[in-house]
This record gives sequence, structure tokens and C-alpha cells, in this order.
Amino acid sequence: SIDGQRLWASLMAMAEIGPTENGGSCRLALTEEDATGRRLLIEWCEALGCTLRVDRVGNLFLRRPGKCDDLDPVATGSHLDTQPKGGRFDGILGVLAGLEVFRTLHDHDIVTERPLELVVWTNEEGSRFAPAMVASGTYAGEFSVESTLARKDRDGVSFGEALSACGFAGELPVGEPRLDAFFELHIEQGPVLEQEGEAIGVVTGVQGMRWFDVTLRGQSAHAGPTPMRYRHDALAAAARLLDRLQAHAMADDSGATKVTFGCLEIDSPSRNVIPGEVRLSVDLRHVDEGELDALEARYDQELAAATERFGVEAASERIWASPVVDFDAGCIEAVERAARGQGVPYRRMMSGAGHDSVYVSRVAPTAMIFIPCRDGISHNEAEYATPEHCALGAQVLCDALLERANP
Amino acid sequence: SIDGQRLWASLMAMAEIGPTENGGSCRLALTEEDATGRRLLIEWCEALGCTLRVDRVGNLFLRRPGKCDDLDPVATGSHLDTQPKGGRFDGILGVLAGLEVFRTLHDHDIVTERPLELVVWTNEEGSRFAPAMVASGTYAGEFSVESTLARKDRDGVSFGEALSACGFAGELPVGEPRLDAFFELHIEQGPVLEQEGEAIGVVTGVQGMRWFDVTLRGQSAHAGPTPMRYRHDALAAAARLLDRLQAHAMADDSGATKVTFGCLEIDSPSRNVIPGEVRLSVDLRHVDEGELDALEARYDQELAAATERFGVEAASERIWASPVVDFDAGCIEAVERAARGQGVPYRRMMSGAGHDSVYVSRVAPTAMIFIPCRDGISHNEAEYATPEHCALGAQVLCDALLERANP
Ligand SMILES: NC(=O)NCCC(=O)O
Ligand SMILES: NC(=O)NCCC(=O)O
Repeated sequence: SIDGQRLWASLMAMAEIGPTENGGSCRLALTEEDATGRRLLIEWCEALGCTLRVDRVGNLFLRRPGKCDDLDPVATGSHLDTQPKGGRFDGILGVLAGLEVFRTLHDHDIVTERPLELVVWTNEEGSRFAPAMVASGTYAGEFSVESTLARKDRDGVSFGEALSACGFAGELPVGEPRLDAFFELHIEQGPVLEQEGEAIGVVTGVQGMRWFDVTLRGQSAHAGPTPMRYRHDALAAAARLLDRLQAHAMADDSGATKVTFGCLEIDSPSRNVIPGEVRLSVDLRHVDEGELDALEARYDQELAAATERFGVEAASERIWASPVVDFDAGCIEAVERAARGQGVPYRRMMSGAGHDSVYVSRVAPTAMIFIPCRDGISHNEAEYATPEHCALGAQVLCDALLERANP
Repeated sequence: SIDGQRLWASLMAMAEIGPTENGGSCRLALTEEDATGRRLLIEWCEALGCTLRVDRVGNLFLRRPGKCDDLDPVATGSHLDTQPKGGRFDGILGVLAGLEVFRTLHDHDIVTERPLELVVWTNEEGSRFAPAMVASGTYAGEFSVESTLARKDRDGVSFGEALSACGFAGELPVGEPRLDAFFELHIEQGPVLEQEGEAIGVVTGVQGMRWFDVTLRGQSAHAGPTPMRYRHDALAAAARLLDRLQAHAMADDSGATKVTFGCLEIDSPSRNVIPGEVRLSVDLRHVDEGELDALEARYDQELAAATERFGVEAASERIWASPVVDFDAGCIEAVERAARGQGVPYRRMMSGAGHDSVYVSRVAPTAMIFIPCRDGISHNEAEYATPEHCALGAQVLCDALLERANP
């Protein structure tokens, strides 16, 4: 069985790279911090005899040989990049639990039938380069390599430039290697497991999500002499849109409708200037694809109403749509058996967050394992999961991997 | 009579300093651009035999001697700093019309009884350093020299540092020289004169204004798995506050209630992160002090309601309150006589924007002259006043100054 203390020690060591003021981590994708984290992982894996391959969008594949090396590997992994003020577990746990499985097998001189593969997907968070999960999406054929390399961050630096600068532009064709199956351990990032007193989530799929880039164009004018009815206040239109969509989402008692405005920026802001132009991002989610369509229609409607009320123009671009995903029944059952084997309370559940498994599931049988996180908080420096839950999740991952790798 | 073409040429020459993409100007207070604009003016004035004095907060006093130089001067002026995407007339017209009066007197070898003084007040806009009109306010005793020098811009640079860096930290004690009277020509920055077909506004006073710095603190969390009812979304609270205050202001049919949120910034924004902290600025105005009190009370109430609804905490600081101002009856009448003398339609009116005259009026008899600006637009690169209106305003200014300087 895996070593929970060793797993915790590697989590804490990784958190030392790009530490933030309040105990979180900042390793935005393809920055020097992200690269340092990757190099530490590679060092750890090479000490176990693993071999590294890097594909053209910077995904890392660390292979532990099996008895039959021409069989496709059973894979696990997640991401090492974080939000600007991110936590120490989101993504990292999935990677370091894979490492811990490798270390455990190494300690016991166990060689599986199929090879094992630990994967680190590039830019999962979507914070530096939109959309999220862009490199696992490229691996799975959702995005072309060219379009991914051309994506730009807010400072105009392209994914390709950042990849070269940090030394992770690999040669491996994107889409290789093929995987026999993929299992991803992750913190839940929501409140359900903790509130229900369950230790493991057997993840059956992921809710749908859509991202929009919106520009509202009104007219900047003087805050003092301009009567309200002459204004074209772009910020007022944004506020109306957000407030109306918030109310709509809050009125859904099931809690399934989710609306978030994560970014909002005024062009040339000044205290006594009516904002003439505002750029913002909109994130809409739902577990049901039809309901998500209805939510998007409502968004369009509220946007039209807000722009009309405030006399501003809107340009809204849907930059990403990730449909509702159902994971592979066989992989879900393997996770469920492993959870049952631990004798802890567990539940089948959908994921509210996107994960690399969303895209990997298109090209390989896939399932995920969740553990609780404190107060359901993630994308926050205060994100926390207990050492016991981390160890438990790694054990369930280990058991599911071994079952699949030794058929 | 003044030379309208020459005035227009000096306006256009000044606009060449810190030009913006769409035909406006960017000379934020105490930047290199602001300093360049000041040096050009000084050069023009020194060519007319004027002498320069600079006080400790960078206000420029350019004196044209009179017959009785121990009498207090009759003064005019305004400011040369602009908004980040500002126009070519706001403030600049008042300064360059003063220059044009000096040039006209020079051409005709006219010496007034009282000396004349052209004043350039530092940081009128309040965009780089809050509040607005801070240096005329210091001159008038509203702010101490120390507190003004200590004010910081968004990058943490102090007023005093910026003043030294751009070479305008003078020696003249603040509050000197005393002025016999102050007349300021300005564009209206609102729509009234244009809409009513009037060419001159005889400004009788200025509406009251209050500025607030607000921080809303919720909790950042993941946009995906966090149900709406668990959120503490700081941006949603800001949007609710703005939307409710907008509705309140729009419901005032008189048009006198004005609410503007000019700045709004999310801490560490990311598309899929519920905003944990938002900082914003609020600008409230009204022509009636009691109504302004009521508006502030309403603001407090809506802030409390928004923070309660979204489970966030608020820290709101009132950083500035400029009461409703009434100008000097004698100066107002002098302006009105000068306007009548031109035979153009004019009206008495209140100013919606703050001006240096607000503070100067506390220590010297003061009044202002407005001319129309296109579509009432100001604090915008598209700000425009016709050469004819600029010339007319300068002529009214000239006549009012001469009447006062030759009693
Ligand atoms: N796991 C995670 O935080 N993924 C980011 C993608 C999303 O926004 O759901
Ligand atoms: N004239 C002018 O734009 N002043 C700035 C101060 C204010 O916000 O009213």
C-alpha cells in the first residue's frame, strides 16, 4: 500500500515552488515556476527508472516499463499549473499520487503487465491561456496543434513562445502515445463530499461549460455634468447583465445552474470618467446539455436587454464549449471497486470542474476519483485536503491502475 | 479684441503634446508630457515679458505687470493636465485663453491698473492623484502641503516625488500670491448649452461631489463546482450595488442625481475563479447638499444590502467631499455683463464638474464662463469645441478681466 507521508512530503515540496503570500501556489502555465515544478517531478521519476517523452504542446509522458511493452500503457496524471492565487492540491495531487504509485511499485519490485504512464498535461487551468485543458484537448484532437501554439496570454505572449522559453517544446507528435485507459485523482473543488461525510467520489462525468469573451462599448464621458439619461455607461451594462444572470442562477433551487464573471476590465479607468469600454469573461455551466443551451439563450437575452437599457454595444464571442461528458462504464466500475475495497463511504457524482479527463475520455476509457477538500474551496490559496484523504485517494488510484494493468 | 485663430493655433499646438490614438491628449498630472506642456506655456508667456513663480505644490503663477503692482492681481487660468484618454479643451482652453488675453494686451500695449496673473493649477483632473483640484485646494487651505505631497498614484509614486522628477517643485509658499479675483473659462463638459442653443454659460456655482474608495471582500472559489448559494462573490456584490444605485439615479426625473463607478478592479482575476476581492471607486454628485446627503445615505443602504445578499464584507472610505459652491455675486455679474456685451444667447447655470474655481472661490471672489462642447462630451478623446465658441469665451473672459483690473 502507498506511503501517505511520502505523498504528503512531495505535495509540500512542490508547493514550495511559486509559493504565495497566504500559503498557496502560483505556477501559471509555462512560466519559470511551472518549468521548475516539472523539472522536480522529472528528477523524481527518473530516479525510479522512468523515461520521459515530451510532445509538441509540452505534455509530459513519464513511462514505467511493464512486462509487455508493446501494449498501450495504463495512464494516470493531471496538471502542475495553478491559478494566479491557486492551491497546493488542484492538479498537483493527481500527478504526485501517480508518482507515489510508481514509488510504491518500485519499493516492492512490482512490474505490471502493461506499462504505466504518468502524464502532466500543459495549461489545464485556462488562466494564462484560454481555454482550460487546452493541451489534453489538443492530444485528443479537439484543437489543432497550430491553433494551440498560437493562443496568446493577456500580454500577447503565445503558447508556442512560452513553451520554447521554458524549455518544454517537445518532439513527440501530439496524440502519442495511445493510452489503454486513463485514471485521474483530483480534489472535488466543491462542497458535496465533505458535507455528506463521504471520503471518495466515483466520478461518472463532467458538467458542460461555455466560455465567452465580451466587449461592451459605450461612450466615455464626464461623471459630473453628464445626466444619467445621456450616458452610455459600459460598466453599468456589465453590472446589469451580471446581476440579472446571478438572480437567474440563484433562482434554480437544484443548484445546477452556474454563472461566473471571473475577469472584468475597464478601458483607461478614471474615477470621474463614465466607463466607455469594458471587457469581461463569462463562464456558464450546467450538468444537462439542454439546460445549458437554455442558459446560453438566457445570457443572450439579458445581454441584449442590458445593452439596450444603457445604450451600449456588445460583442460577445463564445470562445469555448465543453459538452457534458460521461466517463467509461468499465473505468467507473474499476474505481468503484477500489473505493469499496477501502471500506469507506463513497458516492457516484458528476464533476463541476473541467479536467483533462474530459478530453482524454474521447480517445481512451477514462474515469476520475475525487477526495473532499475543506469547505469545498478551490482556486484559492486556502485550498486544503487532509493527508489522510490524499493517501486514501492515492490508494484507490493505485488499486484501479493495478487492476487495469494486470488484466 | 482677441485673435480667435491664434487661440486655436495654440490649442492645437498644446494638443500635440501627449497625443492619443483618436485625436485626444494624454498628459496625466506631473508626467513628462505634463511638464512639456507647462514648459511650452512658460516659453510663450516669457516672450510677452511675464514672470514665473512656482509654489511648493507645482502651481504656476505667470504675472503680467500692471500700473499698481502692489495691488493684488486679477487672475485667470485653469489646468493643463488631462484624463488618460482626455480631450484637447478641458482645462487647456482656460489656460490658453488667458495667454491669448495677455497676447492681445501686449499687441495693443495695454497696461492694466492691477497686475494680471495667469495660473496653472496642478493635478486638477484627480485621475493620477485623488482627489481632483488638489493643488488649488491646497492653495486655498483645504489640504495641507504635506498631505498633498504625500498622496500616491496607483503605482505608489507620491505627488512630491513626481513633482521633483518633472522639475516643478517650486519655492513659493502655498497660498501666495493673494488674488483680487479669479475668472476661469472652461468648456461646459455637459449637454445643456448646446441643446438650448446658447453660446455662453454664466456659471453661478458648482454641484457637490463625494468620492469613495470601496473594497469588497468575499472568497475566491472555483467557478465550476461551487453552487451559487455557497458563493461569496465580490464582483456580484459590486454589480448589485452599481445596478441599484444606477436605477435610483435614473429614477430622478430632474437629472440632478449622478452616480458613477469609474474604476473597478478584481484582485488576481481568472476566468474560472469567483472574484474574491474587488476594489472600486464611487462618485456621487448633486446640486443640492441635502439631496447629496440623502444620496450618500442611499449608497450606504445599498452597499449594506448588496454585501448581505452576497455574503461579502465591505470597507468604504469617503476620501473626498466637495460641498455645493456658490460663486461671488460681483464676479458673476461681471461675466454676465461681458456675455451680454457680445450679444449672444447665454444662461446662468451650475457646473456639474468640479473646477479649480471651487477652491479658489474660498479665498478670492470667483466666477466661471462656460462655452458649449459637442454632444456634451468631455473626458473623451472626441471632446470638441468650435473655434468660434473658444474665441467667444476668450473674449468674454478678456472683458471680465479688464473690467475688474481697471476699476
Ligand atoms: N480542475 C480545474 O480547476 N480545472 C479548470 C477548468 C475549469 O474551469 O473547470
Ligand atoms: N473639469 C474637470 O474635468 N474636473 C475634474 C473634476 C471632476 O471630477 O469634476
